[in-house]
Amino acid sequence: MSDPTRVGMKHGAGGRAMRGLIESVFLRGAAELPVDGFGLEALDDGAAIRLGDRWLVLTTDSHVVKPRFFPGGDIGRLAIAGTVNDLAMMGATQVLGLTCGVVIEDGFAREELERIQASMHQTCLEAKAPIVTGDTKVMGRGELDGLIINTSGAGLTAQLVRDNGLRPGDRLIVTGNIGDHGLAVLAARSALELEGELRSDVAPIGTLVAAALAAGGPSIVAMKDPTRGGVAASLHEMATKSGVGIVIQESAIPTSAAARAAAEILGIDPLYVANEGKAVIGVAPEAAERVLAALQGHPLGRDAAIIGTATADQVGRVILDTGLGRRLVGELEGELLPRIC
Amino acid sequence: MSDPTRVGMKHGAGGRAMRGLIESVFLRGAAELPVDGFGLEALDDGAAIRLGDRWLVLTTDSHVVKPRFFPGGDIGRLAIAGTVNDLAMMGATQVLGLTCGVVIEDGFAREELERIQASMHQTCLEAKAPIVTGDTKVMGRGELDGLIINTSGAGLTAQLVRDNGLRPGDRLIVTGNIGDHGLAVLAARSALELEGELRSDVAPIGTLVAAALAAGGPSIVAMKDPTRGGVAASLHEMATKSGVGIVIQESAIPTSAAARAAAEILGIDPLYVANEGKAVIGVAPEAAERVLAALQGHPLGRDAAIIGTATADQVGRVILDTGLGRRLVGELEGELLPRIC
Repeated sequence: MSDPTRVGMKHGAGGRAMRGLIESVFLRGAAELPVDGFGLEALDDGAAIRLGDRWLVLTTDSHVVKPRFFPGGDIGRLAIAGTVNDLAMMGATQVLGLTCGVVIEDGFAREELERIQASMHQTCLEAKAPIVTGDTKVMGRGELDGLIINTSGAGLTAQLVRDNGLRPGDRLIVTGNIGDHGLAVLAARSALELEGELRSDVAPIGTLVAAALAAGGPSIVAMKDPTRGGVAASLHEMATKSGVGIVIQESAIPTSAAARAAAEILGIDPLYVANEGKAVIGVAPEAAERVLAALQGHPLGRDAAIIGTATADQVGRVILDTGLGRRLVGELEGELLPRIC
Repeated sequence: MSDPTRVGMKHGAGGRAMRGLIESVFLRGAAELPVDGFGLEALDDGAAIRLGDRWLVLTTDSHVVKPRFFPGGDIGRLAIAGTVNDLAMMGATQVLGLTCGVVIEDGFAREELERIQASMHQTCLEAKAPIVTGDTKVMGRGELDGLIINTSGAGLTAQLVRDNGLRPGDRLIVTGNIGDHGLAVLAARSALELEGELRSDVAPIGTLVAAALAAGGPSIVAMKDPTRGGVAASLHEMATKSGVGIVIQESAIPTSAAARAAAEILGIDPLYVANEGKAVIGVAPEAAERVLAALQGHPLGRDAAIIGTATADQVGRVILDTGLGRRLVGELEGELLPRIC
């Protein structure tokens, strides 16, 4: 169905198709400008450049979520949290500065722009992350659906954490209920009536990650931000890059009742749904309970759980243990949820 | 005419209206998250954060130029050069890393994306500036006019140069012919037939700026990138922030014959037109000739010229000496040239 000569929706939705596009179009030739550290070739949440005995972490994300306001958040909160969290995933829990590039459609309501700005500012305060420089462009009416926000970030860390450090036996932790962001946005988009409250989890989690790092130290061997493609995509990347398999217990995966209800109605597996205030953390087995306790002691980590274990076999695969049997968790091709973040 | 409750084209075109929007909407509350250095409140080409005895410079720009290919360049070359040059304007002539966030319309031709990528890559090689991390989003058909590229950059410098350091008597240098970029894009947009060759000047000028800094050292007191709003907007900002006036000699301003011809046909003053491979440099008088010679010795600076002098009176004003008399160079309100970069 899809035309190979054209970019399609699936190229922006996480998972295999997007990696393919980035790899084939944007990576070519990256080897000619080597970085002292880890750049585009690592396809991690960000890049890490050596600066003396520390690492400068850089990351970027453009935000196109639709609708711009949804239960639990908005595009402004998302733009700040998304970038702060990408930095945290590499260990840079303290932000040096964020940049903000806004592209706006001519005629956009100033009042809405101010609400978005107020939300960005509030989220910056929560994250202790200043916006240090910005850029505004305007496109003509009909040339852009409202507004796009790009946020890039810079952070420093002495302990760099990557997404490829899992070894057989390491435990996988998720820091709380999964799927809330994507399902809340989808429910808002489709004006779905749900019982109970389904809200996006969008939040900056630098302090949560700092608590885990303080408790786990070098026993924390991998971290990943389960945004587009959800926990499933993060686990696939971690397994592939680490050269291990991953087995997860279905009964251990934390989800809210509201998310389960929405997922059932929408026919979507929460494992594949974007989160915007969670981390998937790989920990050496002897430190797993200690890190879990540290997470659960933080307001943003109360529902944290150990969901699985890395294995020496089934390299690159993610396997779900349902209690009744085991099945492969497939890798998302990519077109599940456009404009989810 | 313009509706104050809505964002208009003028808010994205440089000059006074854009500064007003950024100031009123995005700056509010920046004081609550102070930076050790110069952040958004400085409204400079980028931000500078102190890192030991050096400065980390951060900058961001979104690129929406229309058409995407124009004589002398394309949106990919522009996206790299624009960000590299903003870093250079603050003294960071060596780039640590660039980030690249691309938002693409569903159905965009992959072949065109690959041409843009090849151009970005070529420009990265010229600038010795690696793209270290990236993000791709796709919007639906009709939700975006083709493609937007955000590039952010990080650089380190021991000598921070700002845009507010002019003192009475300092000389103003432009590093070459002005107006070529904006006029070439406009000519392409209007399918204007011109005699001679009018090409955008889009180029990374880190090595040119490094040559000037090597020759001038601390005698270089201010630099600015004359993009949106052109040399006129840069001079206004430098004059206002430095607390000086500026007098420029019309006969000294370098322009190409092709740019003059296009400007005449289009009825546009080249002083207000965006450049993408030039700098406006403020230099102490005793070093001006030395810096000029260094610039002229670089392939990208052959047409560099001293165009004016900072004055103690007429603070915040830019005055053009035509040889027959003097007149005020007005500050652009903003809507001259949408989507020029």
